[in-house]
Amino acid sequence: MNGAQALVATLRACGVEVCFANPGTSEMQLVAAIDGQHDMRAVLGLFEGVVTGAADGYARMADKPAMTLLHLGPGLGNGLANLHNARRAASPVINLIGEHATYHQHFDAPLTSDTAGVARPMSDWVRVSRSARDLAQAGVEAFLAAGTYPGKIASLIVPADHAWGEGSSPVDAPEQALPPSSPQAVIDEAAGALRGVEGETCLYLGGRALREGALVQAGRIAAATGARLICETFPARLQRGVGRVAVEKLPYFGEQAEEYLSGFRTVILCGAEPPVSFFAYPGKPSWLLPNGARVVRLASVRENAGAALEELAEALGAPEEPVLVQQPQGFPVETGKLTPKSIGVALSELMPEGAIVSDEAATSGLPIYGKTAGAPPHDWLTLTGGAIGQGMPLAVGAAVACPDRKVIALQADGSGMYTNQALWTMARERLDIVTIILNNGSYAILNVELMRVGVENPGPKALSMLDLKNPEINWTQLSEGMGVPGMRVSTAERFRDALSEAIQTKGPSLIEAIL
Amino acid sequence: MNGAQALVATLRACGVEVCFANPGTSEMQLVAAIDGQHDMRAVLGLFEGVVTGAADGYARMADKPAMTLLHLGPGLGNGLANLHNARRAASPVINLIGEHATYHQHFDAPLTSDTAGVARPMSDWVRVSRSARDLAQAGVEAFLAAGTYPGKIASLIVPADHAWGEGSSPVDAPEQALPPSSPQAVIDEAAGALRGVEGETCLYLGGRALREGALVQAGRIAAATGARLICETFPARLQRGVGRVAVEKLPYFGEQAEEYLSGFRTVILCGAEPPVSFFAYPGKPSWLLPNGARVVRLASVRENAGAALEELAEALGAPEEPVLVQQPQGFPVETGKLTPKSIGVALSELMPEGAIVSDEAATSGLPIYGKTAGAPPHDWLTLTGGAIGQGMPLAVGAAVACPDRKVIALQADGSGMYTNQALWTMARERLDIVTIILNNGSYAILNVELMRVGVENPGPKALSMLDLKNPEINWTQLSEGMGVPGMRVSTAERFRDALSEAIQTKGPSLIEAIL
Repeated sequence: MNGAQALVATLRACGVEVCFANPGTSEMQLVAAIDGQHDMRAVLGLFEGVVTGAADGYARMADKPAMTLLHLGPGLGNGLANLHNARRAASPVINLIGEHATYHQHFDAPLTSDTAGVARPMSDWVRVSRSARDLAQAGVEAFLAAGTYPGKIASLIVPADHAWGEGSSPVDAPEQALPPSSPQAVIDEAAGALRGVEGETCLYLGGRALREGALVQAGRIAAATGARLICETFPARLQRGVGRVAVEKLPYFGEQAEEYLSGFRTVILCGAEPPVSFFAYPGKPSWLLPNGARVVRLASVRENAGAALEELAEALGAPEEPVLVQQPQGFPVETGKLTPKSIGVALSELMPEGAIVSDEAATSGLPIYGKTAGAPPHDWLTLTGGAIGQGMPLAVGAAVACPDRKVIALQADGSGMYTNQALWTMARERLDIVTIILNNGSYAILNVELMRVGVENPGPKALSMLDLKNPEINWTQLSEGMGVPGMRVSTAERFRDALSEAIQTKGPSLIEAIL
Repeated sequence: MNGAQALVATLRACGVEVCFANPGTSEMQLVAAIDGQHDMRAVLGLFEGVVTGAADGYARMADKPAMTLLHLGPGLGNGLANLHNARRAASPVINLIGEHATYHQHFDAPLTSDTAGVARPMSDWVRVSRSARDLAQAGVEAFLAAGTYPGKIASLIVPADHAWGEGSSPVDAPEQALPPSSPQAVIDEAAGALRGVEGETCLYLGGRALREGALVQAGRIAAATGARLICETFPARLQRGVGRVAVEKLPYFGEQAEEYLSGFRTVILCGAEPPVSFFAYPGKPSWLLPNGARVVRLASVRENAGAALEELAEALGAPEEPVLVQQPQGFPVETGKLTPKSIGVALSELMPEGAIVSDEAATSGLPIYGKTAGAPPHDWLTLTGGAIGQGMPLAVGAAVACPDRKVIALQADGSGMYTNQALWTMARERLDIVTIILNNGSYAILNVELMRVGVENPGPKALSMLDLKNPEINWTQLSEGMGVPGMRVSTAERFRDALSEAIQTKGPSLIEAIL
């Protein structure tokens, strides 16, 4: 078997079942090797940002490494933005990146570039295979690096002559264990703080602390101590909905977040780093915790937050039953002009149990998020790294990981344009995704940010750089051009009808919500 | 004035008139500063690859630095592929890249990344401003770096606090002179070789040697010596058409190129590096010149190829009149099923004088190129770096640089998907571009490459990764969804009619050629 075959067989034996791919000439041997693994699925994306975003979505939902196949330096470059988001989500991703044959590189052919240099800024681990016989071993190392709890970005660069040269046998991977819980001293420190004045301590939750089981432990702690449960603004995967322990979400804007946190004397971090301002603004702080607040690091994003929360609950003698359990909510059916709120109300009513929401709704997102708290249990995935163009690709990967669950992509129009090609993959793979385009015809967030950074009286040229009208984008046409049936709606009634139909119909569809 | 204003005023004084932009929050002060320069045009792209490709197209046609405005690490990442192409074209491009405020960076906010690290692989020059007062000086340095003959990629990273802090006055730039001609010894060496056996020596031309004036000198040399004139496979800008000195184009596939060059004993490089194989293939050479051939480096891409050719012509006592002057060609009007050849025939007949062709036609390109040799004088721009998704963005920039010339984008379907957002900018700016989508429903080149790298009997999964059918992409819908009127044609007659109308109508249009 050649190097490519040994590598792919190794990764298949590790449990990798899907390859999100956008290959070029230097990856043809890898394409053939994947072809030869009868139980490895290949999902083609027509742009690398779709591929890397889909890998992230798959990894978040499958909790195991996702694999991509990318074309040397510039192709990898196209995938960086969503690798950035995946890295911020601590998603396990293995990138297989083709490269010119080793002997060809110094000829400086047109596509030659510093592929490792392109990979490095958005990877936790980068390695170039040393020979054809090294590829299988390199594959295991990539798998283990990607699997570093809860996940890392591992980029393996595969020169073409290593792929087509005679390889070794496939290599077995050792088992990876969950990390242990936090040290007893940290548990005791947290317990001590929680036994203090009620209302002065909160749990600040992120990462794996936002899964259902960990949230039950957080809810037990709240039952025992009255502690508030606050979650990071952009969680990778938050399990919420009826019957689950509900958390408060930290506001996005720094000054609001600072105010929100101002009453706490102690903040217990669990699966999260201390909250900081998303951007800097003149005269406003970057650090959002109250000055002088005590910080207890119960578990970082790389530690076993679920186990730490359980031990903490036990240390506090917490009752078995959590508090803050989400109850159903009912809202009157909305009518009239479509708004984010009415979208949220319709989703709250119609979202099926087990739905997965990929939220890149930007400025339209908060009302939708708020209204869906009482929907049936679902997973909510957000833009962890702030690199826009994630929403639809993430939905692709989530749908591949969970074919029996409905995926809902909440996609702001400006952000959606970056990776609109995702729609084609939804159509090709017949993925069960409802994409809701929130079409307000602008980079609305930037109109807010322009003011916040201190620009007064912007002229028409500045405003035009934040504006998506002239011409208006017709997302229904874009969608149908890529094979996904679309519908344009501008009233709450028609939105509800369209959503109802889309949810009842298996397969991809798009609703263009004119706001 | 703040740092952003000082920087932008400095660049405006250097002659920078256009900014291709896709800004985010960290660039808001730069947006405001551009807004304040009443004679600086801002052209919004809805994806960074559009922005960087447009900058390249502008630079190739305007022969002066193009400017981009990009959003820190991930946004810049989206622009890398077309920066790679621009760098391979030796186009002058200044990237202004926003960054978190200096004091904010160590808080590791979600969008924090190694922006300089992302810039470096595709830049010739990278610099981070040191203070608000340093920004104007940094701008001049970026301008000079970008202007290094014939052009380089200069990336200036602007932390937000430098942009909003109190800046210096604008800084003046020194004049940049053309490089001198090549040393006399090199001219003499080339002249000596050309005086040898006719047919054994060729000029291998690239870069600025492919402009009209330099080609006249090459044609005089051919008149004096019978030397053949061969041009690089992917020129940045080739001036061709009736009345211009015609050059032969080196074939793309390595084995064909090797065969093509096999009869030469001496190759004189002018504005070009020695030709090498685009990719490596098992058992095939990377170096394409005949073994033992003498190589004379008359001028590299960074030297003054035009002056060197003129001196060489004089040294040879060449006649004033060049040979190989292109004559008009007439072809019978094509009928029946549309083919690349019939597209070429129609273009040859209908292309107006001064047209600019952005050629990312991939496998469909060669017949079109061949048939248009005898069209009125025009510029032909190609995919210099092999990073696909260049064609339409390049056309955007060319049209901005040359508003009185018709631009024709020959766009393969697979490649076009990477930067389809360029259509929106064409519509918004009402650019005079006819985009011709060559829709064959596949990454056709990869089907060829799969065989060439030695993959035999590929299975359906491998072939599906090279296939764009299922679903078919409807480019006419995509185009109209972004505001560019489109038309689908599948016969030679209807193509000719559509092209005729598109050429007579000022403004953007798209013809989807079903092949």
